[in-house]
Amino acid sequence: MSRMMKLGAFFFTPGSHAAGWRHPEAVPDTDMSFRHYVSMAQTAERGLLDCVFFQDTAAVNGTAALNGGSPWRPGNGRQVFPEPATLIAALAPMTERIGLVATATTTYGDPYTLARRFGTVDHISGGRAGWNLVTSQIEDEAGNFGFDRHPDHADRYRRAEEFFDVTAGLWDSFDEDAFPRDKQSGVFLDPARAHILHHRGEHFRVRGPLNLPRCPQGRPVIAQAGSSEPGMRLASRVADLVFTAQSDLAEAQAFRRDIHARAAAHGRDPDHLRILPGLMVIPGETDDEAQARYHGLAALMDEAVALPLLERLCGGLDIRQYPLDGPLPDLPPSNAARARQARIVAMARRGNMSIREVMRHMATSLGHNMVVGSAARIADLMEEWFRAGACDGFTLLFPFYPRPLEDFVRLVVPELQRRGLYRTAYEGRTLRENLQIPPPSSLFRNQGS
Amino acid sequence: MSRMMKLGAFFFTPGSHAAGWRHPEAVPDTDMSFRHYVSMAQTAERGLLDCVFFQDTAAVNGTAALNGGSPWRPGNGRQVFPEPATLIAALAPMTERIGLVATATTTYGDPYTLARRFGTVDHISGGRAGWNLVTSQIEDEAGNFGFDRHPDHADRYRRAEEFFDVTAGLWDSFDEDAFPRDKQSGVFLDPARAHILHHRGEHFRVRGPLNLPRCPQGRPVIAQAGSSEPGMRLASRVADLVFTAQSDLAEAQAFRRDIHARAAAHGRDPDHLRILPGLMVIPGETDDEAQARYHGLAALMDEAVALPLLERLCGGLDIRQYPLDGPLPDLPPSNAARARQARIVAMARRGNMSIREVMRHMATSLGHNMVVGSAARIADLMEEWFRAGACDGFTLLFPFYPRPLEDFVRLVVPELQRRGLYRTAYEGRTLRENLQIPPPSSLFRNQGS
Repeated sequence: MSRMMKLGAFFFTPGSHAAGWRHPEAVPDTDMSFRHYVSMAQTAERGLLDCVFFQDTAAVNGTAALNGGSPWRPGNGRQVFPEPATLIAALAPMTERIGLVATATTTYGDPYTLARRFGTVDHISGGRAGWNLVTSQIEDEAGNFGFDRHPDHADRYRRAEEFFDVTAGLWDSFDEDAFPRDKQSGVFLDPARAHILHHRGEHFRVRGPLNLPRCPQGRPVIAQAGSSEPGMRLASRVADLVFTAQSDLAEAQAFRRDIHARAAAHGRDPDHLRILPGLMVIPGETDDEAQARYHGLAALMDEAVALPLLERLCGGLDIRQYPLDGPLPDLPPSNAARARQARIVAMARRGNMSIREVMRHMATSLGHNMVVGSAARIADLMEEWFRAGACDGFTLLFPFYPRPLEDFVRLVVPELQRRGLYRTAYEGRTLRENLQIPPPSSLFRNQGS
Repeated sequence: MSRMMKLGAFFFTPGSHAAGWRHPEAVPDTDMSFRHYVSMAQTAERGLLDCVFFQDTAAVNGTAALNGGSPWRPGNGRQVFPEPATLIAALAPMTERIGLVATATTTYGDPYTLARRFGTVDHISGGRAGWNLVTSQIEDEAGNFGFDRHPDHADRYRRAEEFFDVTAGLWDSFDEDAFPRDKQSGVFLDPARAHILHHRGEHFRVRGPLNLPRCPQGRPVIAQAGSSEPGMRLASRVADLVFTAQSDLAEAQAFRRDIHARAAAHGRDPDHLRILPGLMVIPGETDDEAQARYHGLAALMDEAVALPLLERLCGGLDIRQYPLDGPLPDLPPSNAARARQARIVAMARRGNMSIREVMRHMATSLGHNMVVGSAARIADLMEEWFRAGACDGFTLLFPFYPRPLEDFVRLVVPELQRRGLYRTAYEGRTLRENLQIPPPSSLFRNQGS
């Protein structure tokens, strides 16, 4: 196998486990401590990871209920965090090779501003920026942008498709050699190498050009995580990186085949996509040590925290009306993350799980695949999935920070390297080079302005 | 005099002089070179400057003409640059004490996103962020946000007032002690210390809370540069720093008195504002060396560049229809920066200047006050203005980068220190501490949520 596994680290501080921040080894303020973000990004870079990846929500979770007049009952942890595109800019000069991927919604905001911001990170970092393109899911966000609720699921995806097209067009505003900055002739900018987009679509009217030279990567790496029908359509058309959440090997194989077929139908080489399912890792020196961590975390799980989390993940369903030891009811149609809801119901039916079991599972790993154990056990699972064509690598989740990340880099990375599954040095300077994905060609190639 | 002069450096790369980038000593790509931005910010910090300050325009200058179908004739230099709020985030970990001020418009975009971004920089930098709050001026921007032209001048200022109120309210979302993150009790966030804004105004409906803890500075330092009637109203109500462009001492004294009186009328202590007029400095070891630099720059001035610049500064007037050696015509009412237009006309009338002279003046210093000479000559002018109560310090402009900035720090700063006009060490850790401006109190002080 010539190409190796690609790995991203999902920094869902203070922890992907709902009670992770309370673990004795956890630093509970990794959500806001810049010093820790720097140290964690440097740890991931020491582990030769392709990228660190930051989620985003433009709201404090749990405020939407206020529209109905009920008292505010915020969940626990992950309430506040640095705006991720700003955070990755600050991490750029503190790192050298690792990719820096931030989430930003297409449901609110302007493509021009977004193209400037992520393009700027790409310039500052020497070609290490990535944009995880999402549609807004949790209803809490709508109220912060003048709305009572989000646009409909289908509308959000149509807007996302157009939002991407506008940003991609703006990133092509200038050819690489558009700025001679020639002191002698006085030619700073060559207008023949500038391109004006003149976009007019259903959601946006944007003239251009972007006031930024072409990015080192041509454009930032595009990540996408939607697994609904419109989500997969979008991902297969535009994404370089696909974040997913399958926890079943056969399901992951089917998903990857599906995305590959869709990419080919869009005229893309499926080999230019990297599909990285989420994997919660709880490592230890031994299986026993890892199991002790897992059980220590389980003991800290507070149902008063886990229940609202499940309610949110189920699109706002009031689960309190059902017995916790009974089965998960069918979820009513909602406007939130549909593919996730379908996955939760399927998992519950498959495992014949009670509401309480589903709730604890979601609060432990956010519904992602999970592995608890020694380096060998973790590497076994990763190798099995990778060799079976279920993925191109993984998006790693950690129950808390920074210890499990440090242990992964110290214990699991060398094990993967010994097995010939993982790089021993970065392949290149840019995120695209390390992901082994070619730069995009310009919309305006072989055209006048 | 107990309080000393405050100094900001305006990084208008590749140079505030329209031909600055062509000077033999200039680095012509300081507009896009992050390495140079870092080095320049560190130079300014070595000179104990209060802040570095970045302008912004969400467009390439000179594209608006396209709406009329005429061919694109971009001006020279300052066409492309990093998005400044992203840039200051990346400069934060590379500096320790200097303030980082970025411009962002209130005419487009959302207060929630802006509050997150500048609040994040304040957290990352340990309290060194500043927001230069502007309304959009050059019409080039409108087309990138779905409009043919900007809203009217008065509308833009009404929106700016409300935009500020929303961001300020969002920055008060949490009290300082709102996040106990107590592992024992499991209390991560104390809802009693959280405040929900529920803003509903003419332009914005924003619920809150902001998903960010209270900033180290309470809120970022607010800068404002408007000198029109609504601009002065806004500055006197909300600004900590006021950037201005008077080049006449008596005019600057009158402006400062006016702003102070307006601030007092808003119930503010006028002593909590810092008014920093722009000052273009062309330093040299001797007056002769400085004059040689000035004349070297003048010789590089290209009227094909300077004329479109003047046209833009005059709100899009087609100046080509007038003889260049005749007087500047009265400027027709425009929707752009009105105070600047009035200042240009007043200056031309006062000095009996031809269009060509006005054009060369604006292309040299962007219409700001200018001083060319040795450290003693520059310090003389600065001392005169400061002692006369015309300002609290200056916003320094440089014709190109990085040499004149380096010379200012090496030659002029020690001269100001010798005269007892300038600090010999930073007073504090945050920008507010160095500016000696108290933190704002919370909107929700002594209130429940």
